[in-house]
Amino acid sequence: MNNDNLIEKLKSILKENQLLLKDDILTRFSHIWKTDEPLQAIAVTFPKSTKEISEIVKLCNVYNQQIIVHGGLTNLVGGTETQKNQLVISLEKMNTIEEIDSKSKTITTQAGAIIESLIDAAAEKDLLLPLNFGAKGSAQIGGAVSANAGGLRVFRYGMTRQMVLGIEVVLPDGTIISSLKKIIKDNSGYDLKQLFIGSEGTLGIVTRVVLRLQEAPKSRSSAFVAVKSYDKVVKLLKYLESELSGGLSGFELIWNRTYRAMTESTELIKPLGDNYEYYVFIESLGSQPKEDYELLEHHIEKSLEKEIIEDAVMAKTEKELQQIWQIREDVAILASKAKYDQHFDISIPISQIGEIINSIITELELINQVKTIFPFGHVADGNIHFIIGRETNSPEIIDLINSVVYSPLKKYKGSLSAEHGIGLHKKKFLLTSRSKEEIELMEKLKTMFDPKNILNPGRIVF
Amino acid sequence: MNNDNLIEKLKSILKENQLLLKDDILTRFSHIWKTDEPLQAIAVTFPKSTKEISEIVKLCNVYNQQIIVHGGLTNLVGGTETQKNQLVISLEKMNTIEEIDSKSKTITTQAGAIIESLIDAAAEKDLLLPLNFGAKGSAQIGGAVSANAGGLRVFRYGMTRQMVLGIEVVLPDGTIISSLKKIIKDNSGYDLKQLFIGSEGTLGIVTRVVLRLQEAPKSRSSAFVAVKSYDKVVKLLKYLESELSGGLSGFELIWNRTYRAMTESTELIKPLGDNYEYYVFIESLGSQPKEDYELLEHHIEKSLEKEIIEDAVMAKTEKELQQIWQIREDVAILASKAKYDQHFDISIPISQIGEIINSIITELELINQVKTIFPFGHVADGNIHFIIGRETNSPEIIDLINSVVYSPLKKYKGSLSAEHGIGLHKKKFLLTSRSKEEIELMEKLKTMFDPKNILNPGRIVF
Repeated sequence: MNNDNLIEKLKSILKENQLLLKDDILTRFSHIWKTDEPLQAIAVTFPKSTKEISEIVKLCNVYNQQIIVHGGLTNLVGGTETQKNQLVISLEKMNTIEEIDSKSKTITTQAGAIIESLIDAAAEKDLLLPLNFGAKGSAQIGGAVSANAGGLRVFRYGMTRQMVLGIEVVLPDGTIISSLKKIIKDNSGYDLKQLFIGSEGTLGIVTRVVLRLQEAPKSRSSAFVAVKSYDKVVKLLKYLESELSGGLSGFELIWNRTYRAMTESTELIKPLGDNYEYYVFIESLGSQPKEDYELLEHHIEKSLEKEIIEDAVMAKTEKELQQIWQIREDVAILASKAKYDQHFDISIPISQIGEIINSIITELELINQVKTIFPFGHVADGNIHFIIGRETNSPEIIDLINSVVYSPLKKYKGSLSAEHGIGLHKKKFLLTSRSKEEIELMEKLKTMFDPKNILNPGRIVF
Repeated sequence: MNNDNLIEKLKSILKENQLLLKDDILTRFSHIWKTDEPLQAIAVTFPKSTKEISEIVKLCNVYNQQIIVHGGLTNLVGGTETQKNQLVISLEKMNTIEEIDSKSKTITTQAGAIIESLIDAAAEKDLLLPLNFGAKGSAQIGGAVSANAGGLRVFRYGMTRQMVLGIEVVLPDGTIISSLKKIIKDNSGYDLKQLFIGSEGTLGIVTRVVLRLQEAPKSRSSAFVAVKSYDKVVKLLKYLESELSGGLSGFELIWNRTYRAMTESTELIKPLGDNYEYYVFIESLGSQPKEDYELLEHHIEKSLEKEIIEDAVMAKTEKELQQIWQIREDVAILASKAKYDQHFDISIPISQIGEIINSIITELELINQVKTIFPFGHVADGNIHFIIGRETNSPEIIDLINSVVYSPLKKYKGSLSAEHGIGLHKKKFLLTSRSKEEIELMEKLKTMFDPKNILNPGRIVF
């Protein structure tokens, strides 16, 4: 048995426009950020249905053919990288939004639909799909489910995991598991969908999903405040959670050094002086624009009186709101401040973020080759991102930086990956966040699902 | 190898007050509702630590000894039933609440702690553990996690699954998996805890957990309203979700026949006339008692004006609020209306509940031996409970009733168990809600985790 036979068989189940071979493959790029890097693979397939995916996977089983699943190619940990002997299953032709049920508040879709198109389709019916992250214009929902994507609304609405009501997957042996339920509560045996959410396509290919939608909020209010100490950041979070009740939807922190870098010599506005330790972006969503704004304003004033915060500005117009949030969102600016950059996405218990990040910064500053250190993140979720700039690309320095950032994780029971996953790139650090027993159990699961290790091999386990 | 050897070995690892044998076992009851039915077992063990549980489980492996795990014995599907050749591991001596972290808003506890004591401990620090169901005064948190318990606050705060941040379990081979993390976001490989939540103790024994807490709300407002049609019930839900934004926390429905039964000749009040098709209990939680009450009142008035609802009453005092909610909560009254009763806990997509429940009632009314039919439930979650009273205990009639209630589930992609689980009692109906492929995958998982089938055997799969 060889590749030629496999290709012949693929031709018998796929139409001509569903299969790319040889030089045609090179017309595609390998990653959304590497559009000049041509894709390597023995074939790229474009199935149009779950059944076609199942047939492709069954064939690959017979021929021991490794498969890499492609969505919007926005994965940040090498999840979609290929070798030239691997076959790609691209979901891009499976982009049909099948149904929006306004009464049950669900959307049913094929896995290749772009997240933004789902958000827009829901919005047309005054419903909210609360997934919101930078790559939403390219990322596909199947990838978001497989990676359990997070983003800017996790604090209020949860990760992707919380939005998935029903799922359809193709297992590594081609078996179709279809459970496209619209129900919120289902304790009828093992909740199998949880196995496929966040396992980065190593246990099955997500082909269709049912997602829970929310009623669209009618108001969005924002404030930007300056805080003196991390303790007061936590105090502010507790205060606003308590006073705004279900309304608080965003609470994003940036450190002084990050704020300075974002606002010096850029197109961005600088709403507050740059002499404070911490800056917090606050968002509340509600149903009464005027009252919700006034309530947030009232508690921001109270926070000033109580000296929880040092200074503050409310976003009085939609334009001001956009301008303020841009300081949080345009983090690509931070990556441009040094020759090379290294990105982190760690979780730490909220109570300990202040001291841990301080000690990481102190240690990083001792490394000569480190030029810039920019922490920021979803502090209400305990999720801090770091963009670290360096003058060198030497593997020793990269490893040294990794070991500094990851070293507190074991002790404080954190995670090396809050949102981005493990993929190929973070696998060697998995022990910083998971025990030997946990990793062994993951390996047993992978072996049970995929004994030939043909589906997304090399990701997470082996 | 025989039982005597196992007992001797158990004596070597447990203190005298940690082991019950022979007649002493009969001093314990088998279920919280069957306190006159003595427990059957070859031994009851009371480990005090995860390590002791691991040692007991390892011994049981050597001796092929079946284990049934006991918490508060409130399970409704036979999950804690024993045979006299089975060994019980009771978690009741593992009831230490280890830590409440006010900043990270987490509670860390051993699995045998009573849920109400966790709620109280959190409340002392102005934090809310949003688990709220009838059995909370007896049920233990380990059982609630293993069963993925639901209850009255699911609509706003989710099932138990959403509250679990960290978990420690003993696998059927005695391996300890400990991941007592306090973090909300963790995409470091497979989310193994999801496997143990809701799998009814068949894949491992939950020994400790970290739960996410919420800031305690400061206001609770309630209304009770009468509605003419199911379509208008859904309209009202959408309207209130939209207008109260994050505030809506309860939306419970009872049918006319259930309302009549609850309010005729009982101690309960009758806040509205009994001539409407549907009655809805509405609850909002917030931070501003006066404003939140007025906002709910305003939208109840609007709903009357728009003719979404027919009649309404606001709970003006805490006493009135309690009295109104008692009509929803004292459902034991419904079970007393006939000689025998049969309870159901089904999930159906919200959009289809009205027609499906109507057609179930119509079919049940054709069965002579059915005397009472009382539907009610968590309509915002798509979860309807049925208490059906009959004059006979004949297995044929019981089966007939089961088949009527379960028959729409396959077609409408519902679930035979929204909250209560499968246990021993619902196993034979599992195919109404899960596919052959799903059940086969559950069986493969069970076999991988527990090849000797010694842990909670007979539950869910085999």
